[in-house]
Amino acid sequence: MTQRTLGTCYYPEHWPEEIWPEDARRMVEAGLTWVRIGEFAWSRIEPAPDRLDWGWLDRALETLGAAGLKIVMGTPTATPPRWLVEKLPDMLAVGPDGRPRGFGSRRHYCFSHAGYLDECRRIVTLLADRYGAHPHIHAWQIDNEYGCHDTVVSYSTAARDAFRDWCAQTYQSPGALNRAWGNVFWSMEYDDFAQIDLPTATVTEPNPAHALAFRQFSSDMVVRFNRAQAEILRARTRAPLLHNYMGREVAFDHYAVGADLDIATWDSYPLGFLEDRVPASDDGRARFLRQGHPDMQAFHHDLYRAVGRGRWWVIEQQPGPVNWAAHNPAPLPGMARLWAWEAFAHGAEAVCYFRWRQVPFAQEQHHAGLLRPDSAPAPALAECRLVADELAAMPDAATARARVALVFDYASAWAWQVQPQGAEFDHFAICFAFYGALRRLGLSIDIVPPDADLSGYALVLAPGLATLPDGFCEGLTGTAILGPRTNAKTAQMAIPVPLPPALPGLDTVVELVETMPAAGALPLAQGGRLVHWAEQLGGTAEIVEARADGRPALVRAGKLHYLGGWPDADALDRILRRACAAEGIATLDLPRGLRVRDTDTHRFWFNYDMKPVRFEDREIPEAGVLWEAL
Amino acid sequence: MTQRTLGTCYYPEHWPEEIWPEDARRMVEAGLTWVRIGEFAWSRIEPAPDRLDWGWLDRALETLGAAGLKIVMGTPTATPPRWLVEKLPDMLAVGPDGRPRGFGSRRHYCFSHAGYLDECRRIVTLLADRYGAHPHIHAWQIDNEYGCHDTVVSYSTAARDAFRDWCAQTYQSPGALNRAWGNVFWSMEYDDFAQIDLPTATVTEPNPAHALAFRQFSSDMVVRFNRAQAEILRARTRAPLLHNYMGREVAFDHYAVGADLDIATWDSYPLGFLEDRVPASDDGRARFLRQGHPDMQAFHHDLYRAVGRGRWWVIEQQPGPVNWAAHNPAPLPGMARLWAWEAFAHGAEAVCYFRWRQVPFAQEQHHAGLLRPDSAPAPALAECRLVADELAAMPDAATARARVALVFDYASAWAWQVQPQGAEFDHFAICFAFYGALRRLGLSIDIVPPDADLSGYALVLAPGLATLPDGFCEGLTGTAILGPRTNAKTAQMAIPVPLPPALPGLDTVVELVETMPAAGALPLAQGGRLVHWAEQLGGTAEIVEARADGRPALVRAGKLHYLGGWPDADALDRILRRACAAEGIATLDLPRGLRVRDTDTHRFWFNYDMKPVRFEDREIPEAGVLWEAL
Amino acid sequence: MTQRTLGTCYYPEHWPEEIWPEDARRMVEAGLTWVRIGEFAWSRIEPAPDRLDWGWLDRALETLGAAGLKIVMGTPTATPPRWLVEKLPDMLAVGPDGRPRGFGSRRHYCFSHAGYLDECRRIVTLLADRYGAHPHIHAWQIDNEYGCHDTVVSYSTAARDAFRDWCAQTYQSPGALNRAWGNVFWSMEYDDFAQIDLPTATVTEPNPAHALAFRQFSSDMVVRFNRAQAEILRARTRAPLLHNYMGREVAFDHYAVGADLDIATWDSYPLGFLEDRVPASDDGRARFLRQGHPDMQAFHHDLYRAVGRGRWWVIEQQPGPVNWAAHNPAPLPGMARLWAWEAFAHGAEAVCYFRWRQVPFAQEQHHAGLLRPDSAPAPALAECRLVADELAAMPDAATARARVALVFDYASAWAWQVQPQGAEFDHFAICFAFYGALRRLGLSIDIVPPDADLSGYALVLAPGLATLPDGFCEGLTGTAILGPRTNAKTAQMAIPVPLPPALPGLDTVVELVETMPAAGALPLAQGGRLVHWAEQLGGTAEIVEARADGRPALVRAGKLHYLGGWPDADALDRILRRACAAEGIATLDLPRGLRVRDTDTHRFWFNYDMKPVRFEDREIPEAGVLWEAL
Repeated sequence: MTQRTLGTCYYPEHWPEEIWPEDARRMVEAGLTWVRIGEFAWSRIEPAPDRLDWGWLDRALETLGAAGLKIVMGTPTATPPRWLVEKLPDMLAVGPDGRPRGFGSRRHYCFSHAGYLDECRRIVTLLADRYGAHPHIHAWQIDNEYGCHDTVVSYSTAARDAFRDWCAQTYQSPGALNRAWGNVFWSMEYDDFAQIDLPTATVTEPNPAHALAFRQFSSDMVVRFNRAQAEILRARTRAPLLHNYMGREVAFDHYAVGADLDIATWDSYPLGFLEDRVPASDDGRARFLRQGHPDMQAFHHDLYRAVGRGRWWVIEQQPGPVNWAAHNPAPLPGMARLWAWEAFAHGAEAVCYFRWRQVPFAQEQHHAGLLRPDSAPAPALAECRLVADELAAMPDAATARARVALVFDYASAWAWQVQPQGAEFDHFAICFAFYGALRRLGLSIDIVPPDADLSGYALVLAPGLATLPDGFCEGLTGTAILGPRTNAKTAQMAIPVPLPPALPGLDTVVELVETMPAAGALPLAQGGRLVHWAEQLGGTAEIVEARADGRPALVRAGKLHYLGGWPDADALDRILRRACAAEGIATLDLPRGLRVRDTDTHRFWFNYDMKPVRFEDREIPEAGVLWEAL
Repeated sequence: MTQRTLGTCYYPEHWPEEIWPEDARRMVEAGLTWVRIGEFAWSRIEPAPDRLDWGWLDRALETLGAAGLKIVMGTPTATPPRWLVEKLPDMLAVGPDGRPRGFGSRRHYCFSHAGYLDECRRIVTLLADRYGAHPHIHAWQIDNEYGCHDTVVSYSTAARDAFRDWCAQTYQSPGALNRAWGNVFWSMEYDDFAQIDLPTATVTEPNPAHALAFRQFSSDMVVRFNRAQAEILRARTRAPLLHNYMGREVAFDHYAVGADLDIATWDSYPLGFLEDRVPASDDGRARFLRQGHPDMQAFHHDLYRAVGRGRWWVIEQQPGPVNWAAHNPAPLPGMARLWAWEAFAHGAEAVCYFRWRQVPFAQEQHHAGLLRPDSAPAPALAECRLVADELAAMPDAATARARVALVFDYASAWAWQVQPQGAEFDHFAICFAFYGALRRLGLSIDIVPPDADLSGYALVLAPGLATLPDGFCEGLTGTAILGPRTNAKTAQMAIPVPLPPALPGLDTVVELVETMPAAGALPLAQGGRLVHWAEQLGGTAEIVEARADGRPALVRAGKLHYLGGWPDADALDRILRRACAAEGIATLDLPRGLRVRDTDTHRFWFNYDMKPVRFEDREIPEAGVLWEAL
Repeated sequence: MTQRTLGTCYYPEHWPEEIWPEDARRMVEAGLTWVRIGEFAWSRIEPAPDRLDWGWLDRALETLGAAGLKIVMGTPTATPPRWLVEKLPDMLAVGPDGRPRGFGSRRHYCFSHAGYLDECRRIVTLLADRYGAHPHIHAWQIDNEYGCHDTVVSYSTAARDAFRDWCAQTYQSPGALNRAWGNVFWSMEYDDFAQIDLPTATVTEPNPAHALAFRQFSSDMVVRFNRAQAEILRARTRAPLLHNYMGREVAFDHYAVGADLDIATWDSYPLGFLEDRVPASDDGRARFLRQGHPDMQAFHHDLYRAVGRGRWWVIEQQPGPVNWAAHNPAPLPGMARLWAWEAFAHGAEAVCYFRWRQVPFAQEQHHAGLLRPDSAPAPALAECRLVADELAAMPDAATARARVALVFDYASAWAWQVQPQGAEFDHFAICFAFYGALRRLGLSIDIVPPDADLSGYALVLAPGLATLPDGFCEGLTGTAILGPRTNAKTAQMAIPVPLPPALPGLDTVVELVETMPAAGALPLAQGGRLVHWAEQLGGTAEIVEARADGRPALVRAGKLHYLGGWPDADALDRILRRACAAEGIATLDLPRGLRVRDTDTHRFWFNYDMKPVRFEDREIPEAGVLWEAL
């Protein structure tokens, strides 16, 4: 049981020192517990090589701590200063166009660069030596938003050399690599690891096995980078370690990074995400313009709860318009409160609004804060204070384990980006479609990694899971729906023989796959259609759903189901209601925009619609939250 | 009072010398006064380094002059010959992709390259020494279409070095620059001006202050380039100097270039512009396909009248289909006449059709002329002759000062390109929307720079003027409508504190801005909507227009108004009619496609529609012009 | 008379040697005659420089031949191995972005690279020395799919140097080149061939004459490359030589390559082409998603019959879903049969399904075969066997010479890509539009090169033929419809004077051309519209079709017609019916999706629709084929 708390992000180096005490006092007055600082301040901590300036930071920590705030201290490695780039000019990441990604914004480093990694070790050691036992620092954040601005994959010389080493370690001999990748196909065989280039700028697509290996390698580099800092901090502090993950960022394995940390935190920008990260096929854009997609936040809450093995925060919560999407509307009044409660209902330990005060200069000057640039309250400040009061009045509750699990897998995300086969096939998108269908039924959901313990779940969904781990099916105890495209690949990105899905006890085989534009969607006998992706299934398994042409669409053996296509919302609704009914899971029929989440003591209702909604005997205003004891 | 005249553009070097006399004779017969020559002829004037060939040019000048034509002599610096690129290989501009923009078309030079500037000084000195006092040369054009093909901004080494110098001169110390730009934000601080790169290829957006400074620098390079030639010519000729500007070209400050010249001229291609330069949100494309947008020419006439401080021409007038837009339709019969009269009604001293004869080879072979490639008359020739006759029968009239002024500002154009915040926010687009609304009311308009004397204008509009000059409001004597986004930035691209708009005597403050796609437009209480951009206004100022949600949209103190959003056409119409009524400015309710322009003696009617239009007691045919004494 | 046969493509190097005999047996059992092998096997034939491994290939040839199959042996030059790229690092082609196109897929060579050409000569000599007289090899394929993945045009140093040589040989002096290209236009004159760059990365469009010359040069390099191998093979084998061309690939002159070969073969992927190669304006996409466009295959059959001077095959026939389009649907049952019969009805000697077995690894693992990856039959196998049986029961018939000819010209395709003037103008697209109109009338068509003998054709169509060969009109004996844009250019990409079309005896002249978006289409007096492209025609020729505004649209003198625009389907139907009627050519009025093709003995009916179609007294099922003796 953790006390639920609020916080904010603050950059003392952006403001005159004279106003720090008043800022700290107002933070406490707003009901905030946490303040995160430091993560972009390298040029102020070390203005020149080996010239450290700790004074301002000492005083900032003291001022904030003295006001009663708990501090999250960030390592500043996302923004190496200009003099460091001068020292290590080849530390810059290189884009897919072959050009170095230059200095002048942030994240201008290549994860594979050993020299930069050493510099990070050095500055983090200095920081941790000085502040590891600081009484006001209650958590450490490593770096900032791994992957933001497409920075996981780099085509630098450092990355190329490190990838060759990675291949050598992974495959041991060029012959083994050639066999694993099927390089005989177009005379792509290598005689030496030193011949292997990064899979870019090829005449047509590179070997998908080559591309997938590079994606796995790139993720491994992030894990290595994070671990290097975590090890230094572990040796010097007892405070928990965290990183702030992003929305719909799948370029590295968050489970693997999370394994080296204590708390998963993420940065939740519902309106920005609606514009640029919700799958384009979703029809919610116009209706939820000032509320955010009703499932986008919840999906990530559930995902990062898994990444944090139960411990997670929203460390950056949008408080008003942001600056970075193509359009940046203002949230409806009430949304800053609703978003916070949605997080708490999913088990967040803390929600921190980003940022304390809107900064009037540089890149994010149109990103709202809790204060305006002139220090007057911005609209979210009052909502924040209200949430603080509500939290104080509310008994804490543990996060109940859900009865439904959805498997999300980073390696599958890479596999389908490498080889979508149809333009719309995307791991996040199909998982999000299934997740949304579950939410519309009023269910609470756990998102889990492929190697999770699935026993105890009444319903398990695993669409698009490229390679089933050994024993996956054996670990199931309830109803499971696998597919489409589940177990469709070996770990080396080949089609396995015997053919997929090769599920124990289920006599079905994917004879052929097809992908189609909207005009080619395939009607199902019971209504709805298969969209984007359809499989022709052979075998004798019992047919639960058939296509209008009579071919099987969903088959089963006992509780183990295989789904041979991507159902639209109508079909998914029917399929999931049937599965829930079979397991005795109660479902609702929620109106558009209304969502539910249960803790072990309460049921929370969230109205994402632009107008009040009535459901059973409740009336919930637009942007409203309601909770009821269970 | 200047005699209104016609002219054309001619390239003697493209044609056999034998036909020059006949061409000259036919020009005079067509009613032409002016002929522009020479601006792409460097390789013929100087076929090899320091080998000058003046003979053909001497004879061309003599032939044309002898026929009675006045000559505009162009400097050939827009097309440096191949041997010069060989001599100065780094003179090429560099594109945003980091690649040099090669030889083989035109404008392949970087404005910042000192060596090329010296070569321009050399060739212009030679030209001016020879022809500065030539009796047939009555004007000089410097270079050709600055900015065409996106050539103002260059990422060359020459530009980088010059930008570092510019920064050093502007900010004096790296610390001052860091403070001005807010470089502390992401540890972007510089220790030395030599560390500053051009704002390109950064991981995410560069600091907007950095980007804006580079845009200002790039404009300054154009001013310097132009001034270098102007100074040489001034010392050698008494003929007026001009440059031919373009449509919707905002990459350099035309007012600043114009200050060094005597006449502003521009190149008017109504059908090409309709396809590729009229803001995409405008709905006129299908209706005006063969007429051009009814406000696009007028807007630039009014703009370049300001750039030329009253003296201006159309030096290139589209006579038929062009070659460079995605589609190139033929003008309706009559348009070549209408376009000329629209220019004269706005005060043009001359209108020159581009070009005399369609050239059957090279890049512009599908660009119509007054003659076909086989020297037969093209359709525009007869219209040109008709205009000449009409001009002869028409008393000259001065351009009346309008009662309405619209402020247009190049620095604002750069600011909003650097930081649109919403995809549609663009300085030209919003000024053009306001201009169009005024035109639909039948008004004559002055477009003015931000530092113009505004006393005497009954109505001043200044939407999206990023930074108000000192004393701007104090100089107003009539009704003024400022906003949206007016005075929203410091000159260093930061949000000022106190917050915008900070207008004297008007208690309103922009608490928050939001941008939205079409689906998120905000209805106004009196009808119409705010589109693209909306501001939440605080303060106690009197509300003139409110949003449907009750928030203020247009507020005022006396005659000073602030508009907190981008009104659609319906709302703009109401707001502007109200303002005109308050100032006693008569407005019309023009049918679509009909436009009006007054000189001090006449009212001109232009029908841009595809069908005749009846208005009050007039019937005006499609593509027709009508004038009435006032 | 040739026996019609079936075949497949096989890669023994992809499979364990143990299964080769069974594969061979099953091929024969499926009714296959031909098996193509070897074309991507360089790394297995020569695993290291000069280390040849013939054993496996000897045994594969023996195994396949012993089973009774005829072998097409491919030269492996489309996939140079990694060690060869190491030896000749500058052999890589360079893309329009200036970056080498790297190793890791296929076709990573520049056609202009002399060193790579020598390597190809070496490996082909070795192959031909060993197998030129092999009893089981009955044909040789050179390389694979010239042009695939945009590989004809390369911007490498090798290409630049070779282009300079080509220019020197073509023009003899820089002055002649300057005159031919009109380089005086923008001072683009060269003093030396060594100054000529490739027409890329210029500030605005390069001189179209420069661009066209480079396209011609690039095509010539393909011809040279192919000829080099053909000469070696000719000296060593008596088997016919072939190459496998592609769909809608126009980057090189196929007639010129074909002149050095014996048989034209092509790779027919109807569903992939529907998605990415059928002109976007065509409305068939949704209706023919699982059948392919009803004219796309036939067009290429007719085209490659001309390229092969009568002898042609489909050497790669799609048997199921492919892997490379944005969407990859499955063919309707019956289409694998229909496509084969459409080919035979057009005179194909052989149809080979690609590939024998779906390969479970590397780039094409989702490309269907006749067998699944687990060796079970894929759906097409039974259709293939059915076609084999039908072929056996069917008397052979010669391809009748059609009464209608459509001229298709590669140089015109380049010309209009270089200078479309309107976004939609494209040589393939306009020829395909005319072809489709003829097919909808039930006609059999010959596609012919511009220098074909046209005597004997009752109707000749030549839309968009940039330059008429000398004597073209004199060779016509029936009705001819030329235009739009026919004879509009000199061979040097200039507008000829006297103006186009300059047809003997036909007094019409293109006074002006215009292009327009859909909203600007021009109605014709008799119905339908001119779309994309319209010409204003002067002269006294008899008007057959006029525009609604009275201007001529189609004029004639006797049987020679000139068409001044691009008619939509309605107008084309009327124009072509009239022309057919005049020549006594019977036409049909086919329902959508139904198509006809005549041999000299039979009429074949093909139903491309998703539902059965009734026509006169026939009922043809969806995806059905019917044939009737004539």
